[in-house]
Amino acid sequence: MLRTHTCGELRINDVNSDVVLCGWVQRIRNKGSVIWVDLRDRYGITQLIFEEGHTEAAILDTANKLGREFVIKASGKVIERLSKNDKIPTGEIEVKVSDLEILNKSKTPPFTIENDTDGGDDLRMKYRYLDLRRNNVRENLLLRHRIMQEARAYLDAQSFTEVETPVLIKSTPEGARDFVVPSRMNPGEFYALPQSPQTFKQLLMVSGFDRYFQIVKCFRDEDLRADRQPEFTQIDCEMSFVEREDIISTFEGMIKHLFKTVKGIDITEIDRMSYDDAMKYYGSDKPDTRFDMKFTELNELAQNKGFNVFDSAELVVGICVEGCAEYTRKQLDALTDFVKRPQVGAKGLVYVKCNADGSFKSSVDKFYSQEDLQQWADAMGAKPGDLMLVLSGETNHTRKALNELRLHMGSELGLRDKNTYKILWVLDFPLLEWDEDTSRFHAMHHPFTSPTPADLDKLESDPGAVKANAYDMVINGVEVGGGSIRIHDREIQQRMFKQLGFSDEEAKAQFGFLMDAFEYGAPPHGGIAFGFDRLCSLFGGSDSIRDFIAFPKNNAGRDVMIDSPSAIHLDQLNELGIKLKQ
Amino acid sequence: MLRTHTCGELRINDVNSDVVLCGWVQRIRNKGSVIWVDLRDRYGITQLIFEEGHTEAAILDTANKLGREFVIKASGKVIERLSKNDKIPTGEIEVKVSDLEILNKSKTPPFTIENDTDGGDDLRMKYRYLDLRRNNVRENLLLRHRIMQEARAYLDAQSFTEVETPVLIKSTPEGARDFVVPSRMNPGEFYALPQSPQTFKQLLMVSGFDRYFQIVKCFRDEDLRADRQPEFTQIDCEMSFVEREDIISTFEGMIKHLFKTVKGIDITEIDRMSYDDAMKYYGSDKPDTRFDMKFTELNELAQNKGFNVFDSAELVVGICVEGCAEYTRKQLDALTDFVKRPQVGAKGLVYVKCNADGSFKSSVDKFYSQEDLQQWADAMGAKPGDLMLVLSGETNHTRKALNELRLHMGSELGLRDKNTYKILWVLDFPLLEWDEDTSRFHAMHHPFTSPTPADLDKLESDPGAVKANAYDMVINGVEVGGGSIRIHDREIQQRMFKQLGFSDEEAKAQFGFLMDAFEYGAPPHGGIAFGFDRLCSLFGGSDSIRDFIAFPKNNAGRDVMIDSPSAIHLDQLNELGIKLKQ
Repeated sequence: MLRTHTCGELRINDVNSDVVLCGWVQRIRNKGSVIWVDLRDRYGITQLIFEEGHTEAAILDTANKLGREFVIKASGKVIERLSKNDKIPTGEIEVKVSDLEILNKSKTPPFTIENDTDGGDDLRMKYRYLDLRRNNVRENLLLRHRIMQEARAYLDAQSFTEVETPVLIKSTPEGARDFVVPSRMNPGEFYALPQSPQTFKQLLMVSGFDRYFQIVKCFRDEDLRADRQPEFTQIDCEMSFVEREDIISTFEGMIKHLFKTVKGIDITEIDRMSYDDAMKYYGSDKPDTRFDMKFTELNELAQNKGFNVFDSAELVVGICVEGCAEYTRKQLDALTDFVKRPQVGAKGLVYVKCNADGSFKSSVDKFYSQEDLQQWADAMGAKPGDLMLVLSGETNHTRKALNELRLHMGSELGLRDKNTYKILWVLDFPLLEWDEDTSRFHAMHHPFTSPTPADLDKLESDPGAVKANAYDMVINGVEVGGGSIRIHDREIQQRMFKQLGFSDEEAKAQFGFLMDAFEYGAPPHGGIAFGFDRLCSLFGGSDSIRDFIAFPKNNAGRDVMIDSPSAIHLDQLNELGIKLKQ
Repeated sequence: MLRTHTCGELRINDVNSDVVLCGWVQRIRNKGSVIWVDLRDRYGITQLIFEEGHTEAAILDTANKLGREFVIKASGKVIERLSKNDKIPTGEIEVKVSDLEILNKSKTPPFTIENDTDGGDDLRMKYRYLDLRRNNVRENLLLRHRIMQEARAYLDAQSFTEVETPVLIKSTPEGARDFVVPSRMNPGEFYALPQSPQTFKQLLMVSGFDRYFQIVKCFRDEDLRADRQPEFTQIDCEMSFVEREDIISTFEGMIKHLFKTVKGIDITEIDRMSYDDAMKYYGSDKPDTRFDMKFTELNELAQNKGFNVFDSAELVVGICVEGCAEYTRKQLDALTDFVKRPQVGAKGLVYVKCNADGSFKSSVDKFYSQEDLQQWADAMGAKPGDLMLVLSGETNHTRKALNELRLHMGSELGLRDKNTYKILWVLDFPLLEWDEDTSRFHAMHHPFTSPTPADLDKLESDPGAVKANAYDMVINGVEVGGGSIRIHDREIQQRMFKQLGFSDEEAKAQFGFLMDAFEYGAPPHGGIAFGFDRLCSLFGGSDSIRDFIAFPKNNAGRDVMIDSPSAIHLDQLNELGIKLKQ
């Protein structure tokens, strides 16, 4: 190696050693006859010192030419520092430089290479290789590395076999839009990039692999949002001869292992909730359970008192916000504005202040007596000093809006600490959901999810009432994983495809290989997939998955650094047997 | 779990335990009043026993309905076997079944699920999920899993960070043909799938990641051969602040770790050879050094003796095959036929038998005296009993042909044992090679390979003489890895692109981001990539990488199991802004 040590390695014990360091110039201080240089690499920062009278003139000369982000090689002796820096592990020493070589110069970077940079998003993405030099961005990727290694270590120890499934597969009409790849050897035909290795991992179970995993790139050609990327990574797992409880305990083990080994956190409690309860009490299938503030339905208490808005509503539902009775008119107006935003979509907000003296002050005093409001307070468990917030309207819509308000209040009150982790399984999802646009049922998870055995009879007679043998893992309101016990019986799989509107021919053309496989001894099996990018961002305490991806794409699906996608040569198109539409 | 134990787990100590096993019916033997069933899972085989008089009639009835590959769940008591089977670890016990459930039936498989199957290639690929049930195929993939885990463990311990680089990147004209992916959000533009993460890993070095690795899928749209797949896997690595020797020692460490931990083999010796010597002495840049049989050039001794074939040849070169002087006329004719095959391409073969009595018998006795032939023998180190084989013609062509003959003789003599491993570094490759078709130089490795510093001056004046700072790892004649110290200076990279026939504009359009990055403090760096599929096949003692890939494609790039690639819907094409050519 060009160096003897890294920039994070030297300590007071190393004083008097002769060392060679390589790295980037982070900072230069020039104080009369002394030059200090902070030398940075992935492992840390070490201070170099050049001193007139002690350092050779030619070396001093070179030191004077250094600029930020120059790459240098410095040789010298480790000495004790006069003024120590207890903020960095190397802060007790510095290196008195006796030889200096500039390995590569640097132009002035377009933004500062500091944790708090002055670079905007677009600029940082164009020069992502410089952005990645910033400590916090690099730490995100080192965290990702660590989680990856620990996830594999756990799964390997549990006899899971890592199998690479193909990237060039077959396009299917179900689910999100596929990215496709034209085939030169089979003109007019296309591969598709996998949205998940779902069918392949099921085939591996048919093959008897018993336990499979893969940390694998998947692809969806969908319009992008902040937390979506066209290519993303999954921890993908499947097990044979299991029931739901086996999967749950195996992957509780994994998540506990990750929290323990990566973050030093002991997870002692993992809760469970049915989908129906999640919707009823939190208005979301991924409730943030770091704080309580559960929904209370008020139809019985609040209707038929002459308030037409409530009387005409399908659902009247509220939350009790602790200690916020003192909210001002302005604060309450701001909350009303919040719920009226198009993303939230409520028509208005009813509030009830529970005054310290036991009385109530509400926006609907005209319709409700103090006794009425006392009943609300009893139902909600509201105490003097609390604030009740109530929404009404169509059930799903109102729940969704109150979920947004609940999360907003949780944030306002500081109840959503990024360093507190609450893990929850959401269970008993509906198998199918009705889609108004296409007038047919869609699979809530995917077409391979098994109905719960008790509901199998209802698959044709009452499809909407069938529960899926499925489970989602939710951490702090973020869905990090989901899976199910799969169908392993050809006949049930065919019934499922029928409910999804596939003709027998379509089902056979798309998934014939899987249904055929079910006829040659398919074991009962199930699995789960974790959104790895999200898991990393959650571990890193960030809302953005992009911060945890080395080279992300922007919202238009572009990599602005390499300028991709881009036009290709006409002869490439010709070879592939395709042409561009005008 | 549906089971208490796997089928590979029970031993004599478990006798009298009540157990539940799940698995596949491998074999049924019905001998009067007793039925034995071999139950198989990934972990092994356990014998089940059903006995008239002892087993309930209904259970016996079910047992009588079992067929091969049925999936069953059997409960019972572990008992000691009367006739033990010492070939399997569970051979001392059997399970006396008290309850039996058929979890899934199986049709008769289209081929036998045995190590030596009666299924042909096409049938096995169509039903790959059944092929993967065969022990030897499954063992290949378990070996692959093991190598993967150990490679990562080694690299992680050496401070390499695993970083996922993007799969949707940009098409470049250099190298092999890209697979491309039309972009819906950017109509008329295309992503490309990476042939390797080369530029990204170099950018990670510019970012200061210091040590990077990834076990990653790469893609090449080339016409396929037995050992090529359109998607393949690399162990991809890069390091900063290193010279060639650092890379070599780091990855010797890795390969030793893999041999030790996966195969229990201590690799004590890793040889080195220059490219020039490899070509001169073995006629190949990936010599199989499990056996000697080096080339001896005979121009001085063999020319100007009146044998026109040799006199007109650019090169006369031979090998000495030990102990084969007794080869019959028929055997020698077969060798002549071998070298005349189009794949080998020699015009003829000269042989010289070194008889036991010290005399010589050759196919060119007319032109060469016994003394002449003695001189050849001395040059080759041939002893009585040996056979000298000599080819002649244009240098490269003749070396290539003699390489084939040497490998053939090595195989004939059993010198290429699959359980013997000889590892070799080939060094000092030419940087550029002249391509007659396009009348320009091509990069022998890739355009980012650094010239050796001493040759930098010759880049323009004598490009063909410039050596690359590159290295290949060859095991048993198979190139398993290759890499180089990279260019990290914008000006040298520009000179390189110029030699490769890029205009400044083309270079900037394709690789501007990389050359820009070199101006912001790029460290000296280098790396290597290992062909992971080949490495696995080598560890598994097989010539075919397909045996080590879970779901390979055939020579037409098709996955015959899922029937991909396939036609896609017209509205998919429309959304992508492309149409098929007629």
